[in-house]
Amino acid sequence: MNEIITISRQYGSGGREIGAKLAEKLGILFYDKEIITRAAKESGFSEQAFENAEKKASNSLLYSIVMGMGAYGSQDIGFTHLSLDDQLYLAQSNVIRKLAQEGSCVIVGRCADYILRDFPNVVHVFLWADMEFRKKRVISEYDIKENKAEEEIIKTDKRRANYYNYHADEKWGRADNYHLSIKSNYVGIDATVECILHYLESRKEV
Amino acid sequence: MNEIITISRQYGSGGREIGAKLAEKLGILFYDKEIITRAAKESGFSEQAFENAEKKASNSLLYSIVMGMGAYGSQDIGFTHLSLDDQLYLAQSNVIRKLAQEGSCVIVGRCADYILRDFPNVVHVFLWADMEFRKKRVISEYDIKENKAEEEIIKTDKRRANYYNYHADEKWGRADNYHLSIKSNYVGIDATVECILHYLESRKEV
Repeated sequence: MNEIITISRQYGSGGREIGAKLAEKLGILFYDKEIITRAAKESGFSEQAFENAEKKASNSLLYSIVMGMGAYGSQDIGFTHLSLDDQLYLAQSNVIRKLAQEGSCVIVGRCADYILRDFPNVVHVFLWADMEFRKKRVISEYDIKENKAEEEIIKTDKRRANYYNYHADEKWGRADNYHLSIKSNYVGIDATVECILHYLESRKEV
Repeated sequence: MNEIITISRQYGSGGREIGAKLAEKLGILFYDKEIITRAAKESGFSEQAFENAEKKASNSLLYSIVMGMGAYGSQDIGFTHLSLDDQLYLAQSNVIRKLAQEGSCVIVGRCADYILRDFPNVVHVFLWADMEFRKKRVISEYDIKENKAEEEIIKTDKRRANYYNYHADEKWGRADNYHLSIKSNYVGIDATVECILHYLESRKEV
């Protein structure tokens, strides 16, 4: 049976690196932005449209209103009557479900935990870290200016939470949405990978 | 330096057993209800008063109003002007801080994670589990009737959340309040203990 690990993560907590290392150790595939590329190919929407949809979710109330009414960026295509954002979300969801059926993999972000909630053999992981650690990471990894780092982190996490809370109808970052949540900077990136491996090796649904 | 592990847990997730086994493996002390006994001794309030305070927190809004106004169970003692509940909370907090200073230990529940948030060398753990697992546990461990189990679990967790959210001014069960959150029934009680030990052994604040 395919083995799927989804990773949700605070911005700057090392989620992408931890996911990639975990996939390497397990000898399985790793998906992050590749999902957008494939969803774009399969749906006909541009990659830019997917990225914009994720970036838009910065105001929770506004986002709900906009999404609910389909008033902003709405592009109803005859029989669907879905907003553009909902169509993009559905296209991504289809890709995520296909990837999970195709083979074992690690999937980062994009509500994959919620989309795959009824799949067998899926383990959901959430990663977070102290602000200081995250600031250092986003400055060095994403080339963000020091005086903008904290603001960017807070804004990005707010977007992730709003996007998730709207589409998944669950609360992003609630411990009981995930099999395992880890403060990554307390042990470091590599030890976090080891902790996830350790949990996976112990699995025995009881 | 003392090593402190706090354990927050959903009702029936095995938190008490996991905490006790963890303390045994680490060769350190374990505190759960013992905190109430000691707080009662040191404060002069009865153990029953402490238990009642915890049980009362079943309605979030009502609890906030009651606590804020000191209208219910209020027993202002001259200079303090604190409600009875706030005084009980303070008495427990003092005991928890003393225990953490006295020696290495595992402490279950009672907002210990929040009370010890500024202590060095403290690791906070949250445990949760599927409803079916928890039902079986509360039926066998706490002698609760099968047809009452789910209701009792939901009510108890609601109380724990309200008690925590009021006193700690944080959200109970948010992954980023804890170093490590684990779905205990996916691996079982003993493997959960091992996962916590593994994380503790890897520690290296970075």
